[in-house]
Amino acid sequence: MPIVEAHILEGYSATEKSRLTSALTNAIRFVVPAPDVAITVMLHEYPSEAYARGGQHRQPAPALPDPSTIVRDYLTSMEARDLEAAQSMLREDFQMVFPATDPMTRLSELIEWSKARYRSVKKTYDGFDALHGNGVAVVYARGTLHGEWLDGTPFDGIRFIDRFEISEGKIVRQDVWNDMGEVRAQ
Amino acid sequence: MPIVEAHILEGYSATEKSRLTSALTNAIRFVVPAPDVAITVMLHEYPSEAYARGGQHRQPAPALPDPSTIVRDYLTSMEARDLEAAQSMLREDFQMVFPATDPMTRLSELIEWSKARYRSVKKTYDGFDALHGNGVAVVYARGTLHGEWLDGTPFDGIRFIDRFEISEGKIVRQDVWNDMGEVRAQ
Amino acid sequence: MPIVEAHILEGYSATEKSRLTSALTNAIRFVVPAPDVAITVMLHEYPSEAYARGGQHRQPAPALPDPSTIVRDYLTSMEARDLEAAQSMLREDFQMVFPATDPMTRLSELIEWSKARYRSVKKTYDGFDALHGNGVAVVYARGTLHGEWLDGTPFDGIRFIDRFEISEGKIVRQDVWNDMGEVRAQ
Amino acid sequence: MPIVEAHILEGYSATEKSRLTSALTNAIRFVVPAPDVAITVMLHEYPSEAYARGGQHRQPAPALPDPSTIVRDYLTSMEARDLEAAQSMLREDFQMVFPATDPMTRLSELIEWSKARYRSVKKTYDGFDALHGNGVAVVYARGTLHGEWLDGTPFDGIRFIDRFEISEGKIVRQDVWNDMGEVRAQ
Amino acid sequence: MPIVEAHILEGYSATEKSRLTSALTNAIRFVVPAPDVAITVMLHEYPSEAYARGGQHRQPAPALPDPSTIVRDYLTSMEARDLEAAQSMLREDFQMVFPATDPMTRLSELIEWSKARYRSVKKTYDGFDALHGNGVAVVYARGTLHGEWLDGTPFDGIRFIDRFEISEGKIVRQDVWNDMGEVRAQ
Amino acid sequence: MPIVEAHILEGYSATEKSRLTSALTNAIRFVVPAPDVAITVMLHEYPSEAYARGGQHRQPAPALPDPSTIVRDYLTSMEARDLEAAQSMLREDFQMVFPATDPMTRLSELIEWSKARYRSVKKTYDGFDALHGNGVAVVYARGTLHGEWLDGTPFDGIRFIDRFEISEGKIVRQDVWNDMGEVRAQ
Repeated sequence: MPIVEAHILEGYSATEKSRLTSALTNAIRFVVPAPDVAITVMLHEYPSEAYARGGQHRQPAPALPDPSTIVRDYLTSMEARDLEAAQSMLREDFQMVFPATDPMTRLSELIEWSKARYRSVKKTYDGFDALHGNGVAVVYARGTLHGEWLDGTPFDGIRFIDRFEISEGKIVRQDVWNDMGEVRAQ
Repeated sequence: MPIVEAHILEGYSATEKSRLTSALTNAIRFVVPAPDVAITVMLHEYPSEAYARGGQHRQPAPALPDPSTIVRDYLTSMEARDLEAAQSMLREDFQMVFPATDPMTRLSELIEWSKARYRSVKKTYDGFDALHGNGVAVVYARGTLHGEWLDGTPFDGIRFIDRFEISEGKIVRQDVWNDMGEVRAQ
Repeated sequence: MPIVEAHILEGYSATEKSRLTSALTNAIRFVVPAPDVAITVMLHEYPSEAYARGGQHRQPAPALPDPSTIVRDYLTSMEARDLEAAQSMLREDFQMVFPATDPMTRLSELIEWSKARYRSVKKTYDGFDALHGNGVAVVYARGTLHGEWLDGTPFDGIRFIDRFEISEGKIVRQDVWNDMGEVRAQ
Repeated sequence: MPIVEAHILEGYSATEKSRLTSALTNAIRFVVPAPDVAITVMLHEYPSEAYARGGQHRQPAPALPDPSTIVRDYLTSMEARDLEAAQSMLREDFQMVFPATDPMTRLSELIEWSKARYRSVKKTYDGFDALHGNGVAVVYARGTLHGEWLDGTPFDGIRFIDRFEISEGKIVRQDVWNDMGEVRAQ
Repeated sequence: MPIVEAHILEGYSATEKSRLTSALTNAIRFVVPAPDVAITVMLHEYPSEAYARGGQHRQPAPALPDPSTIVRDYLTSMEARDLEAAQSMLREDFQMVFPATDPMTRLSELIEWSKARYRSVKKTYDGFDALHGNGVAVVYARGTLHGEWLDGTPFDGIRFIDRFEISEGKIVRQDVWNDMGEVRAQ
Repeated sequence: MPIVEAHILEGYSATEKSRLTSALTNAIRFVVPAPDVAITVMLHEYPSEAYARGGQHRQPAPALPDPSTIVRDYLTSMEARDLEAAQSMLREDFQMVFPATDPMTRLSELIEWSKARYRSVKKTYDGFDALHGNGVAVVYARGTLHGEWLDGTPFDGIRFIDRFEISEGKIVRQDVWNDMGEVRAQ
């Protein structure tokens, strides 16, 4: 049953408004088990001159980029070993933790580390989850890995999950879990 | 800058309304980088007689339970080996996937499987993430494991992440990743 | 899809609010073919101190009585020949037109006129329609008549329709059509 | 005092919006005796991208045609004996009941029936009433008939009322009452 | 914390809307000590066809001119002794009261009166206050006077305050206080 | 025509809400020449749990006292020479300017100064104006003075105007103008 009105400044694209209606719809569903048709979201848009906070007219803050898209682009760049492109998506204080590793801060460290583990690896995605929490966007990507071990034997179907934190459009943290250790041990 | 008005039926508790204002605030932040003080959420509450959909007055749907609480309770019951309590939180078609296992459907299977891996295990939580997506509530719990291997040697600091899907208050799916395989291999 | 918010002063009964949500729902449907579930009506109610027009706080105007109820009560009183009760529902300048009669203003005229036509008559209702238009409430009652002709033979199933205009709770006009003339002629 | 806000999708014509504000104004007046100047109706219009129900953006449903206009056009076509035009306004399961007749379903039946009653007939309108109720639009047309009896003598001033039910722009039912039987009997 | 929505007809300029958001912000602050960032004003604008009062569509009333601007223009014209321009800003029944004078109605009276007091006078403004109250706009202008006494000696720094009432864009009343009497007496 | 909705937290008294509706009505009139009956102000009140800014529930800020009342009380205390009561209404950095005086900061200074001018003085009020501007409440009190000169001769009808600035319920500035200098000079 809930009906949501959000009041925003003019200037957001249709896609950004769709992301907003979608996020608000999911926020309602998170708490209230209303059927789909009963949740309506409406956006009131105001030109700057018709909106004042503290007596000052305001300009709309540019929408945040879709964090899932950032994560997909990053993972694609990493698979393609385009480290320059991948690096450009990271904040200066970026940190990543891979299975049973200490935190790493540079992509070159990761590449070095992986050389001792497999020749190549690719991801097949089962799904993404994204949310805002504690001041950052959080994105989960999960699915399975396939590729070649160091000895050239292929592997596939190895489950993985990556967790990302994104702030102001930059990735600040990546945590990775997967079943490679289990599989190798078999 | 966004201001959100949500129109709901009367009958939700203060806690449920807080969960709703919080979820709506996060939904806005997911798309718009507004400063905290500029995001306002207001709930209009209507008695049944002042709210009609399709010409019919409506009763509020009971709020969904907090899925993070369900997950915490479930994990606590499992740690305490209170299988009966844990089972009562699962939907009939519940399925779980643990590292390098086939899907399991009964908790007894899991207990059996774990007996071959460790004497005991406990969780320390680093954080929970929860969202609504694709018709279900999704909860992530992550942190580290400590306990005893089969030979009695202790372990701790082993990273884990659990992903849960919850529907209508029941857990329908659990996916678990952790670094046990990596650690055992070392 | 339309969502309607009506802002009213506090003080209306649940029944009056239901009549209002129902009238607003029908108003939408009159113009937009929205499915039932997509039309929501919400009433915001304000205590007098939170509502000012022209800088003056206001008291709610008492709701108008349901005009269909007035018409039913009037027709029931007439059938029971309780002319006093019926008369009390009429405005001073009340006028009625029956099939092929000149306008009448007093119920006694009607009784006199009917004596030349039948011994008794009762109504069975097929339906009522009610609306507001041109400053008055309009109510239509339709159905069939049964009773006895002057010679004692019974009749039934004779179609009728009555149109009423009601202003401020009083009936100001009644227009009657029926098939008695056709039936008698057969 | 009531103030009404209706939230609709963009795309309705000025005339359609006027019909909506008018219907909502009458809906309020049906229940609350507010003076004219105190009833305000405001329409919020949303582009599709700023409106989502169940997480889906929506297109506005085309407005229903004005049912009074349909009825006028139909009656005009019938007077002009343009049966083809009149037929096109009827739904397949159309039914009509005239004074002391069985239900008829085809306009040719009606023409045949009327040939035994008068040479010609025209309507002068005193007024129309229209509303939405029970899932259909209902239109009442009332006034007087004039024309020629079978023997060529003229008649006029014979009261009539027609009731129509319209669904999705098509007439599904017509009920007719008039004083012809009374007049002929005199 | 207060959030204000004002519903107005389309047609006001950006400047007029700014004046409105500013006046509404000040109205809130007059009663509630909310911090600046917590007071938001939003203007909903409706085309005529989407706004009806008493069932009638409406045209926006032209905004009132800024009364402070009228007062500034008037005082500037008076300083420049452009009596024609000044006169055009006065309503027919204009009245003014200067220190220890009877009410005057014509600017020529004022000029005559002042000739016995000083050769010339100019204003330096410290500030303006403007508000709406009791059906008129009220403007206060205050600051200091400088000029020459009748004997040619200069003066300056003499405090003054003028109070104006403005109705429908015309000045209807001016009341003047200043310290000239005190200063001359010293 | 404008309709104003203000969203506030629950907890304000009826009087405070009346002050708010009144201030908002005057704010509209300051810009738009709408007739009285066309300006409606409605206050939506929210319990703390249904209102969140920046994800935090809020308590209502206590309403500011009516600054005109503060000014009246202060002037009454001064007339009664209740300096203690008057002093309690002043902020520490209070400053006052009387005709042709330097700024004074203590009430005792004022009393001393006045002793050289008159034996006693009382105010008759013609009106008050109050507004919020530049971060302070501004109150104007105007009318006439009556009392006794030092030689015991009475005076009355001497015009005065006082301007006050009030911040957080304390008077921070008083500026006084009157015609005493003019009158004494006559």
